[in-house]
Amino acid sequence: MNNFIYDIPTRVYFGENQLSNLGKELRKYGKRVLLTYGGGSIKKIGLYDKILDELKKGDFTVFELSGIEPNPRIKSVREGALICKKENIDVLLAVGGGSTIDATKFIAAGACTDTDPWEFFSKNAPIEKALPIVTILTLSATGSEMNAGGVISNTQTQDKIGRLSPNLLPKASFLDPSITYTVNKFQTACGVVDIFSHIMEVYFNTQNSLYMLDCFMEGLMKTLLKYGPIALKNPNDYEARANIMWASSWAINGFISSDKNQAWSCHPIEHQLSAIYDITHGLGLALVTPRWLEYCLDETTVSKYYQFGTNVFDIDKNLSPMEVAKQSIQMLSKFFFETLELDNTFTKVGIKEEDFEIMAEKACNNSVIQGFKPLNKEDIINIFKMCM
Amino acid sequence: MNNFIYDIPTRVYFGENQLSNLGKELRKYGKRVLLTYGGGSIKKIGLYDKILDELKKGDFTVFELSGIEPNPRIKSVREGALICKKENIDVLLAVGGGSTIDATKFIAAGACTDTDPWEFFSKNAPIEKALPIVTILTLSATGSEMNAGGVISNTQTQDKIGRLSPNLLPKASFLDPSITYTVNKFQTACGVVDIFSHIMEVYFNTQNSLYMLDCFMEGLMKTLLKYGPIALKNPNDYEARANIMWASSWAINGFISSDKNQAWSCHPIEHQLSAIYDITHGLGLALVTPRWLEYCLDETTVSKYYQFGTNVFDIDKNLSPMEVAKQSIQMLSKFFFETLELDNTFTKVGIKEEDFEIMAEKACNNSVIQGFKPLNKEDIINIFKMCM
Repeated sequence: MNNFIYDIPTRVYFGENQLSNLGKELRKYGKRVLLTYGGGSIKKIGLYDKILDELKKGDFTVFELSGIEPNPRIKSVREGALICKKENIDVLLAVGGGSTIDATKFIAAGACTDTDPWEFFSKNAPIEKALPIVTILTLSATGSEMNAGGVISNTQTQDKIGRLSPNLLPKASFLDPSITYTVNKFQTACGVVDIFSHIMEVYFNTQNSLYMLDCFMEGLMKTLLKYGPIALKNPNDYEARANIMWASSWAINGFISSDKNQAWSCHPIEHQLSAIYDITHGLGLALVTPRWLEYCLDETTVSKYYQFGTNVFDIDKNLSPMEVAKQSIQMLSKFFFETLELDNTFTKVGIKEEDFEIMAEKACNNSVIQGFKPLNKEDIINIFKMCM
Repeated sequence: MNNFIYDIPTRVYFGENQLSNLGKELRKYGKRVLLTYGGGSIKKIGLYDKILDELKKGDFTVFELSGIEPNPRIKSVREGALICKKENIDVLLAVGGGSTIDATKFIAAGACTDTDPWEFFSKNAPIEKALPIVTILTLSATGSEMNAGGVISNTQTQDKIGRLSPNLLPKASFLDPSITYTVNKFQTACGVVDIFSHIMEVYFNTQNSLYMLDCFMEGLMKTLLKYGPIALKNPNDYEARANIMWASSWAINGFISSDKNQAWSCHPIEHQLSAIYDITHGLGLALVTPRWLEYCLDETTVSKYYQFGTNVFDIDKNLSPMEVAKQSIQMLSKFFFETLELDNTFTKVGIKEEDFEIMAEKACNNSVIQGFKPLNKEDIINIFKMCM
């Protein structure tokens, strides 16, 4: 069992009508705020006005960067970092889902270096400084609101890179489940898959790790199985939205993975899909994950599947481990492709065999993903083939 | 579902040989350290020397307060607060279990007021300031290492009071499971019961609350059922000690209870037992809890017992809820009194009927405990009678 340091100081305001605390949180860091957001849906749902009201009350000087893309681009980061430098921004307020929050993290760090952001981040330079970040979450998925990581894309090079630093951890996050009522069926489903995958990447692990965390992960996955369908059917179900939202933060804030250091598998593979095809991350994960599970199943790994199947899907404990494993993969596929109604093949979403080679190469960085089962380029291509 | 603020910034160093980080943590607050501990067992196991080595390396000026009692007394708090004032202490380093850490919290706050500590705390004055606290945990039980609460006793008035303030939250805590190898069978068992009770006080709840947290609580209880017996049988089992230790922090750091505000039942009742008889807190809880469960069981509450029985004890889901409820109480009693080998009656531990009235009166503060089921003085006396 590995040692670890647990350190998640993000303060979370959970529930409806907590925005009255926004000014108090921002004021800790200064008066000059850069508000970042995406395509403007926050205006449609009235959130933008509420936020500006609060900022006006607190007498903040507000700058804006809007139009941050899904699978956010380095272009937005460059733009944001420039504003921060020019306007002496004290604190960043990210309003959105994982894309906006991730981009804002890179802006916060990009504002503290003279190097060009892409050069800085792609060369893996240590992120030793970043402006403070506060977030208002509008989509339950990436967990970016309570963790120290982020992902950014470069459309020119078709690269997607992830970075991690305690300095990127939001100081405070506002999680209001009712804000996610307007998230449509498809995005809700993709969010649920993303959260599910964050847990599975940690749960399917060969290292000896804390049983209490395995139990927690099983509880989180059961939460998604229970409330995913409810949120799809009744988008305004507060209980469903609340459970999914808080699960999204805890799936990837570092708690469940603290004592493990095994590499993730499906995420680096999926990042290549969405880097080239710009498909929604959760959809890509839904496509890859069950095939990855199938590909990794053998006598050496089956016990983990048995634990998964019996504890998460309540499959009969008296069946053979291999039978439980197979049923668990079927039930997961059924959940992703039938219950959550996501497309179930590469063909349907337009991913072509001609890109398998380059995507596989990039996914394993021309080496091996040292995950639940080591995966080299050939393995990944095999998994891709199973997705067709 | 209630709104809540999640805010647990305690940094936790988990695992063996993490003490090399001690100096770094303490230095954030200053150079003058008050080291607090109990009866000297930390000297026997060599921990005291290791700590002093680290403090010497960091060039700290160290003062000591030893002899902090189980069920800590206000006397130690007075003494500690005086040292802090006289010696201009910057930071407190508590080494011990819940008693030492609790006392240290009261010292940290007592050092920042001119009022006599007992007067200050018993009058419920807001704790607006406290010296920073770092802890090294030697016993898994109270969760004091990662929460904002503490309990203190006054032997003269036979009172035991609890206080809560974010200012009492330790800045950092060192959790080394191997330090608890020397905790004896009885204390290990009492610790497991205390942790179990912390979870049950929150789990047995009538408020509509987050399912994902219920799942987490069930996982924590399963962890204790699995590893409690292992730790008793093989005190040096790292995996067992680690799971119990990390569970102890998460049972009561505020995460599981964040969305609930229902009063606890067994703890205020037990506090009266240990205030008069000075029995170990966990033993008192073991005696009271199954009887309390039995007393609260009826048609309006049975569904929670059903959830508890089927998810924690794996009782057959096809049985009637009432049957599952009764079996779950039996299995819990068996766990406390047979597996953990704790005494199962008041008679065996010397608690006498003549004190029922005064203990019940104090437990409900001459009113009603608004817990899972409201309990007045008569109810509590009835529960006491079931414990004989």
